[in-house]
Amino acid sequence: MSTTDKTTVIAKATIARMGMYLRCLLSLQQQGVKTLSSRELAEMMSVTSEQVRRDLASFGRFGKRGSGYDVDRLRLEVEAIFGKGSRRWKCCIVGVGSLGTALLASRNIHKWGFRYVAAFDNDPAKVGTRIERVPVYAIEDLKAVVRKEQIAIGVIAVPGPSARAIARSLHEAGIRGILNFAPQVIREPEKTPVLAVDLSQEFLKLSFYIQRAEEKAEREEDEINASSHVE
Amino acid sequence: MSTTDKTTVIAKATIARMGMYLRCLLSLQQQGVKTLSSRELAEMMSVTSEQVRRDLASFGRFGKRGSGYDVDRLRLEVEAIFGKGSRRWKCCIVGVGSLGTALLASRNIHKWGFRYVAAFDNDPAKVGTRIERVPVYAIEDLKAVVRKEQIAIGVIAVPGPSARAIARSLHEAGIRGILNFAPQVIREPEKTPVLAVDLSQEFLKLSFYIQRAEEKAEREEDEINASSHVE
Repeated sequence: MSTTDKTTVIAKATIARMGMYLRCLLSLQQQGVKTLSSRELAEMMSVTSEQVRRDLASFGRFGKRGSGYDVDRLRLEVEAIFGKGSRRWKCCIVGVGSLGTALLASRNIHKWGFRYVAAFDNDPAKVGTRIERVPVYAIEDLKAVVRKEQIAIGVIAVPGPSARAIARSLHEAGIRGILNFAPQVIREPEKTPVLAVDLSQEFLKLSFYIQRAEEKAEREEDEINASSHVE
Repeated sequence: MSTTDKTTVIAKATIARMGMYLRCLLSLQQQGVKTLSSRELAEMMSVTSEQVRRDLASFGRFGKRGSGYDVDRLRLEVEAIFGKGSRRWKCCIVGVGSLGTALLASRNIHKWGFRYVAAFDNDPAKVGTRIERVPVYAIEDLKAVVRKEQIAIGVIAVPGPSARAIARSLHEAGIRGILNFAPQVIREPEKTPVLAVDLSQEFLKLSFYIQRAEEKAEREEDEINASSHVE
């Protein structure tokens, strides 16, 4: 089995965790931490250390179990998985309401090599201005600008039902991937990944964790009261 | 094994997918769709139908494989997993910059029973006003307001390094769970779940999917050229 074959079967959940490991590692670097055990990384992430080792192993790199991981080196290696270093990702954002503005203002993505080079809106008051130094164009110019600037990633942050039409335009202009923040499901155009980001999902997940944590606490109380062990 | 024991071992990834199923179901209801096969749901989500069946089965409900799922009923059942119907979730937001404002403006969470009852900021120009009809209080009043209103969920949307101190205050005021949008890792206080939401992670994930899709396309081309099958 070649490396490429292996890459294709890595689960979405693993990728999500790899991103979170990267975030932890960056934070540790900033705090001056030099080495790290899989147990420590696991604790920061609320997963098992077995999970951490399995995740890292699924990419077939990252040595040294006994002595722990070198934070600087591990960060570089995890970054390489996401293509940092090898390329820069030009992004555009469609829709600059409060969410679009918040996304443009977020400095977070710069450290991974992403940068906005264009924004689009249908509000004539915004077109021709700059928001967070990024030029705002009319939606009609979307295809031309995406082609000219060779933009890789399109971020859809429009509130309404126009998300699908925008995705189609982005696709036709040769976009390589789409992040969709709009409350509308976009089917993946052939070979162009679309990642839906629905922040209400995070609330749902949290409510589930709260209920689980509270049920667990209740159950532990019951078990103490009953003085019995359940396997 | 009781239902509660089973619930505790359900993976985070499954929960994330259940939330996405719910989103799909809501969208289908709005389009007037009445029944749905696991294959159709799988296609909308870009997962396998086996995955859909396994996910739904892990909660031990949802009948009828052959004839497909009833969309209305399945939505109600999936919602029940997340506690909708059984309770309403009062939320507060700390930090009302562009991200906080975008979150307050998002109507998305209402349908799952979440609502904002308070916002907090340290900008005197904002304190005492309402943003999206939600009253804005001073950060100093956080504990008192959270206690008085019996707020369940605290959303941290401050840009800076004050996230940890805010999490501590929320915890001390009896918050039941925290959603952290700040670029700072917050360790989970005992028995209070903290869910970190880092939007830059979505960019990282997308860049991985793009690379994988492009590698796959290249490989398929190579395979056609070589006229050979690789298992």
